[in-house]
Amino acid sequence: MLGNQRPTIALAIGDPAGIGPELAARMVADPEIREAGSLVVVGDARVLSRGAVEAGLALDIDIRGPNEPLSPGGRPVLRDLGHLDPESIRLGTSSEAGGRSALDNFRTCLEMGKAGLADAVCFTPFNKPAMKLAHPPYDDEISYTAGILGTTGPASEFNVLEGLWNARVTSHVPLSAVAGLITEARVLRGIRLTHASLRDAGFAEPRIAVAGLNPHAGDSGNFGHEDDEIIRPAVETAQRDGIAAEGPFPPDTVFLRANKGEFDAVVTMYHDQGQIAMKLIGFDRGVTLLGGFPFPICTPAHGSAYDIAGRGVAHPGATRAAILLAARMALRQAERTRHSETRPAELV
Amino acid sequence: MLGNQRPTIALAIGDPAGIGPELAARMVADPEIREAGSLVVVGDARVLSRGAVEAGLALDIDIRGPNEPLSPGGRPVLRDLGHLDPESIRLGTSSEAGGRSALDNFRTCLEMGKAGLADAVCFTPFNKPAMKLAHPPYDDEISYTAGILGTTGPASEFNVLEGLWNARVTSHVPLSAVAGLITEARVLRGIRLTHASLRDAGFAEPRIAVAGLNPHAGDSGNFGHEDDEIIRPAVETAQRDGIAAEGPFPPDTVFLRANKGEFDAVVTMYHDQGQIAMKLIGFDRGVTLLGGFPFPICTPAHGSAYDIAGRGVAHPGATRAAILLAARMALRQAERTRHSETRPAELV
Repeated sequence: MLGNQRPTIALAIGDPAGIGPELAARMVADPEIREAGSLVVVGDARVLSRGAVEAGLALDIDIRGPNEPLSPGGRPVLRDLGHLDPESIRLGTSSEAGGRSALDNFRTCLEMGKAGLADAVCFTPFNKPAMKLAHPPYDDEISYTAGILGTTGPASEFNVLEGLWNARVTSHVPLSAVAGLITEARVLRGIRLTHASLRDAGFAEPRIAVAGLNPHAGDSGNFGHEDDEIIRPAVETAQRDGIAAEGPFPPDTVFLRANKGEFDAVVTMYHDQGQIAMKLIGFDRGVTLLGGFPFPICTPAHGSAYDIAGRGVAHPGATRAAILLAARMALRQAERTRHSETRPAELV
Repeated sequence: MLGNQRPTIALAIGDPAGIGPELAARMVADPEIREAGSLVVVGDARVLSRGAVEAGLALDIDIRGPNEPLSPGGRPVLRDLGHLDPESIRLGTSSEAGGRSALDNFRTCLEMGKAGLADAVCFTPFNKPAMKLAHPPYDDEISYTAGILGTTGPASEFNVLEGLWNARVTSHVPLSAVAGLITEARVLRGIRLTHASLRDAGFAEPRIAVAGLNPHAGDSGNFGHEDDEIIRPAVETAQRDGIAAEGPFPPDTVFLRANKGEFDAVVTMYHDQGQIAMKLIGFDRGVTLLGGFPFPICTPAHGSAYDIAGRGVAHPGATRAAILLAARMALRQAERTRHSETRPAELV
């Protein structure tokens, strides 16, 4: 991005049996997206063409083979991996071939980010069963990404719906394991990562609500001690660091308050504490951000929508929001990196 | 209620420092309430008068002393306990005296129900800190009621918002204790109690969704086994009993489906699983029902609203809904009791 204020966004075409190809084609044609960044779509040219046909759009894109230089500029570029004939894919059906193509596209994008060839990575929806058919150890995007990038630091999924963010301290674990995983260090890490991610997204001083673990946030210890003994000290430490965090709040009203605009983000303790609320509020229109990696990774919150695949009626709003968020965060992250790189020289 | 199709509803005036007296006065004047049942308000006449002044209503009620016969008929009756001078109560402040009066009113109503003098019990909002000041072992309405009635069977709080009911298998316990409390017997009991309560409320064949315990309802055992090994067998047993129960469903989408009208009730596994959803959907306008007792006990879901106490602006909708639900359920319960009482004679 040096000398170029438009970040390069690598966009992986997701599951080919769903609405992913159509959404990718819609993004290529979207003036707001073309303005916000240099788009590099990664996938098979025939799959993207089919998406354009479904969307009723002409593809205006430069096509590059797997090993050709990309040099993205004015027009979006397609990195054509030439690995999947869409005729071999049955719309609306999970398949190993479909999962493999989505995984190849995603891995290629992550490697572009790692090599500095992309400032952010996005993807149109994956289909989890297809991913598991193609790669049985596939667990979720966070662990796959950490594997490809070789990162070991804290990473977290954020759910973003317009001005409301949700992060969670634990995620895909049995409910019986949640309480044991709530430690002061983990809660503090979650608050800090939320603060940093919101700052990157443009919030000058993010207002962060931290949910309690127990009913009524423990009701002064009547229904559990974690709220007072683990979560509250973590919030106080964050406050001493200058983070505008508050809590722990009763889990059953914190989203009512956040949804009214009292907070920019809610840090929840477990998967469904946040997901029940966010899905009711309308998170299906929102964005999932994988935070804690060297570059932003965003995707629409909705799934591959097999029920409407191929019909040309996929709503592009969440995918557009994902790419715009990734572009905004990539700009700030690049700026921060430049500052921290130049600061030592300035000090000499 | 023999020979009288209007059930007798005992209505306890709740915390006197909040909107409880105003709401009780509004109910006395409400034509729909007067039509639905014979109302017996229990409390101090001076407190109810103050509520009527706040509401700007003239009190049209027969007043009876603590030991006078009630014989409720056309007009509502006040059982005047003469135990609290409202001048001694500071609006908007929890006090031992306020809590004691609410507890006395509630206990009197429960004893009326136990003695067959009331077919249902309702109360305007309590203030939990005041209840605890008056009676430190006070835990919640369910355990207090079980103590007064001497019942030991399963009881459960239901949250009712228009056509959507929520019951829970566990309630005020630490999250760390939840998984250990989820047994097949408890889940089945929750489903059966939900079914019976909805039938009493007039649902011919209640459609009951059962939430899973774990994220994605365990994702085929990837995040916990309780969904498949405990909850599913309970649902299947209920189905064999002829109950239209389904599940376990992923907890983060079950309320989206129920809210669209696919189900009449959701049985949740823990407090916040249901409360997060119900409060976002607007449960503050709803009704809390204590189910599993010999007669229905209902109250508005909202609290004593100290912030608007004495201002005459309390919204009566949830209290009206509570009394109407109690009246409807009392009619059916009485009918069922009559049938089961007469059946042996018919068999002779």
